[in-house]
Amino acid sequence: MRYSQLLAPTLKDDPADAEVVSHKLLVRAGMIRQVARGIYDFLPLGLRAVRRVETIVREEMNRAGAQEILMPAVCPAELWQESGRWEKYGKELLRLKDRHDRAFCFGPTHEEVVTDIVRREVRSYRQLPINLFQIQVKFRDEVRPRFGLMRGREFLMKDGYSFHSSVEDCRREYENMFRAYSRIFERCGLKFRPVEADTGAIGGSQSHEFQVLADSGEDAIASCTKCGYAANVEKAEGRSPALPDSGETKRLESVPTPGQRTVEEVSAFLGIPPERFVKTLVYVTDRGEAIVGLVRCDRDLSEAKLKNAAGAAVVLLADEDTVRRTTGAPVGFAGPVGLSCRVFADLSLRGMRGAVTGANQADTHFVGLDLERDAGSVELVDLQMVHGGDHCGRCETGELEIHRGIEVGQVFYLGRRYSEPLRATFLDAGGAEQVIEMGTYGIGITRTVAAAIEQNHDADGIVWPIPLAPFPVAVVPLSRDSGDLWNTAERVYGELRGRGIEVLLDDREERPGVKFKDADLIGFPLRVTIGAKSLARGNVELKDRRAPKAEEVPVSEVVGRVAATVEKALAS
Amino acid sequence: MRYSQLLAPTLKDDPADAEVVSHKLLVRAGMIRQVARGIYDFLPLGLRAVRRVETIVREEMNRAGAQEILMPAVCPAELWQESGRWEKYGKELLRLKDRHDRAFCFGPTHEEVVTDIVRREVRSYRQLPINLFQIQVKFRDEVRPRFGLMRGREFLMKDGYSFHSSVEDCRREYENMFRAYSRIFERCGLKFRPVEADTGAIGGSQSHEFQVLADSGEDAIASCTKCGYAANVEKAEGRSPALPDSGETKRLESVPTPGQRTVEEVSAFLGIPPERFVKTLVYVTDRGEAIVGLVRCDRDLSEAKLKNAAGAAVVLLADEDTVRRTTGAPVGFAGPVGLSCRVFADLSLRGMRGAVTGANQADTHFVGLDLERDAGSVELVDLQMVHGGDHCGRCETGELEIHRGIEVGQVFYLGRRYSEPLRATFLDAGGAEQVIEMGTYGIGITRTVAAAIEQNHDADGIVWPIPLAPFPVAVVPLSRDSGDLWNTAERVYGELRGRGIEVLLDDREERPGVKFKDADLIGFPLRVTIGAKSLARGNVELKDRRAPKAEEVPVSEVVGRVAATVEKALAS
Repeated sequence: MRYSQLLAPTLKDDPADAEVVSHKLLVRAGMIRQVARGIYDFLPLGLRAVRRVETIVREEMNRAGAQEILMPAVCPAELWQESGRWEKYGKELLRLKDRHDRAFCFGPTHEEVVTDIVRREVRSYRQLPINLFQIQVKFRDEVRPRFGLMRGREFLMKDGYSFHSSVEDCRREYENMFRAYSRIFERCGLKFRPVEADTGAIGGSQSHEFQVLADSGEDAIASCTKCGYAANVEKAEGRSPALPDSGETKRLESVPTPGQRTVEEVSAFLGIPPERFVKTLVYVTDRGEAIVGLVRCDRDLSEAKLKNAAGAAVVLLADEDTVRRTTGAPVGFAGPVGLSCRVFADLSLRGMRGAVTGANQADTHFVGLDLERDAGSVELVDLQMVHGGDHCGRCETGELEIHRGIEVGQVFYLGRRYSEPLRATFLDAGGAEQVIEMGTYGIGITRTVAAAIEQNHDADGIVWPIPLAPFPVAVVPLSRDSGDLWNTAERVYGELRGRGIEVLLDDREERPGVKFKDADLIGFPLRVTIGAKSLARGNVELKDRRAPKAEEVPVSEVVGRVAATVEKALAS
Repeated sequence: MRYSQLLAPTLKDDPADAEVVSHKLLVRAGMIRQVARGIYDFLPLGLRAVRRVETIVREEMNRAGAQEILMPAVCPAELWQESGRWEKYGKELLRLKDRHDRAFCFGPTHEEVVTDIVRREVRSYRQLPINLFQIQVKFRDEVRPRFGLMRGREFLMKDGYSFHSSVEDCRREYENMFRAYSRIFERCGLKFRPVEADTGAIGGSQSHEFQVLADSGEDAIASCTKCGYAANVEKAEGRSPALPDSGETKRLESVPTPGQRTVEEVSAFLGIPPERFVKTLVYVTDRGEAIVGLVRCDRDLSEAKLKNAAGAAVVLLADEDTVRRTTGAPVGFAGPVGLSCRVFADLSLRGMRGAVTGANQADTHFVGLDLERDAGSVELVDLQMVHGGDHCGRCETGELEIHRGIEVGQVFYLGRRYSEPLRATFLDAGGAEQVIEMGTYGIGITRTVAAAIEQNHDADGIVWPIPLAPFPVAVVPLSRDSGDLWNTAERVYGELRGRGIEVLLDDREERPGVKFKDADLIGFPLRVTIGAKSLARGNVELKDRRAPKAEEVPVSEVVGRVAATVEKALAS
């Protein structure tokens, strides 16, 4: 394609509302434009990047044996009522009414619709397994859409669903999808890591997230230096280094701590170091039950772990009233002694003695706490967020490292979360009716484009991996004055196209500086520059976007060099 | 692909709610399923046909120099308010509100959004022309969605928009798009005709519809046997054969016709043949003005022609009150004499004498009407719907034929209908601000799939043109018992795939009759049947879906034969 015929309105300045680098660069490189908050136009270059991801995803899903379908964006409320999500989903679900006042939603995900297909068409175990996917526009009405494509309201997603006659077969497909996802992100040319994840609100019993590694990532992930174990920090299992033991068994003693609420305040007041403190947090589950979680004061509590320990779907930090009702004291003086609710303590607190906690009484703390002696039936479970340097909870010899990541895909073992309420059943070999086992597998297509930029950029612009680049190559003639120079550019352009490579010819009447700036901003992985000086030597310049300097290459060799690089990067 | 792994749930019986053949066959062949009225799931075979159309459209739009973008499905009300369509569009526009109570619509078309892109990015005539298209899911909240994909609520459409610095350049692009559309429907393998069309509610001054010819088509189109002129009948220009002249100039005379309202009743009552009657119809324009149209009693009035003659955007047949107010008489006795409103008469009424009309008085008609003598300032214009056998209004020597068609695409010369209210302007070479000229170009992707079936089917099922077939070829081994037979099937399947041809291998354990019935229903253009008897002779059967009988072909030749047929049909 010729640049003069391309709508690629590059900008010098960052858009005022953009906070993250992918948002800034997508707008500056003329790839997206905002239509409303969290809603974007994809201009030609942006759409090309989206299509690259889409094509790789489609090819790998087909290769893995999934079948592509297309479900509607506008989905009837009835199906969502059957699953119970119509009530539960909250305001992120964009609800609407048609002219006959019937309720619909703009599908943010399609578990109900796909389960409805399968329950209508599948009768026998002989028709299973089946794996259906679609690439469709989705809408989630985020309360504060921001970060451009990272957290938009309207976005493109690949959502896939598999249906099975047994748990084992569903687990086999989970592994199959796991491998397909790994191939997809490898083919995209991204540094990524599949990590064990909490199953969250969608339900189900097993899940992996695919995290694109980037310092700006919203998620923290922990991975073992030895055994390959990796998980979202909210779920990661680790062993923290032991606390220095106080060595003495003391008597539990209540001490007045008037007006001292935080660990720092009480520590200073009592002259006891903070690592001897136990943090007591009161939560409420989705069933309305108050529960308490205990962690070391130098660690955060993982709500995902607490939720799973309590067998709850959701846990929320309790408000002041609930804290008072549960502990008998105002916020700041909660402790594990004498509570009638369930109390969960992190494993690192096992055997802790001589500790400090609130005394469930205003302006009072306990010292000399022996957790197991004094706190009754505490349930010891893994509750804390891991830190870098913790021992790996799996191999117990490696150390955990913490990375930042952007979740671009997730695979779920769903079980019967949807098939049961929607009565998606089959007849087994013995003629008995059984509920179908399900898995679900999603990839944020537009989010992957943003994540690719978060991972691959520099001060001058985007640095696309070749497989995702809108154009892998730009051919940049520096002047229109010389016919020879221009003809060479046209010839290189034509020959690269003849090799099936997508090239942009910068045929604009602009100064070299403008062309280079735009090329760097848009992020062509390879740039062939044709200038008078090098051409006089029979050469052109070949520049890798990642390399500091261009290289002079004979005109006769440049097409072969470029083609080889691109073909290698695209080989699947 | 293997049939055993394909979700293609074929049905024996037509779905109860299906009225048209494409709807019946798409459901029976397991290609679509209804989710809600006018909203469908596309199952794998149906989606494959959709993608075929989509790919051809995309390739030809790119070839014609258009650039693909993607605009959101959810569009902000503000843009629609700027164009005035927010108020005008009516209930077909699916309106919705986000969580912050801001108004949006599910875009049924994107003139506003695309004009907003261009007004933001284009400053100078040097940036024009520009042609942008998208393939995006659309929603039109039809009051009675029916006919399956022919008139669904949610559908896939290619919508394109071009922007120009002059009327001439916009007309040039109109021709360019006209040619691209012709290539698209040729490549789809459809019999179609581009016809001149009324510009309708979307505005603009010139339009062609692309009509797929099918007896079941909703539209009637007239085409000349000699000069190639073709138009939607509502707009087609023709000259009807002259009426037998009564020969005599008579005096206008009012006669009592008590209770006689219809032409047939009055004709019988007065003993005057119906061809001497003039039909008088009262309409109201969108400006609230009552107008009258006159046509021969054996012809229908074209509302499109009346609307254009009156310079109105819309005309609606008047209700009883308006008829009474306008003519002074109840419905059934209207006539052109003595009216104070504008009266339009069809050209065929020029010089008509001795005619019969209502007398604008209850139970009274006029006889002896000389239209131009008696009716004052009648405007003579082309008003009537053409009939087959009329002379062509263009070349005046050929005859018009009437065909039925399904509109699958439309090109519009839009002018400034959107660029003016949205202030999409540019600076011309002299630095003066000018309003951009626009064209708009649409293709119903899912509708084209339905139209292809309306045109190509028989009693047994779909008869896909090769370019649109979900799979151009089915390989059908008749038995699993013989290893030789099965191996031959696998080999043919593998070799065809090796040639890049999409094949379905019917590896199901079903009787030959079931396999043949499904193959005919799904409509594979070519079927290779491998049976024991012909295989003993070294042959397989090759059946063209359109041919009455299969042909025996040596195993060694069948792949070449099939590949040649498919490649020829797909050559672009």
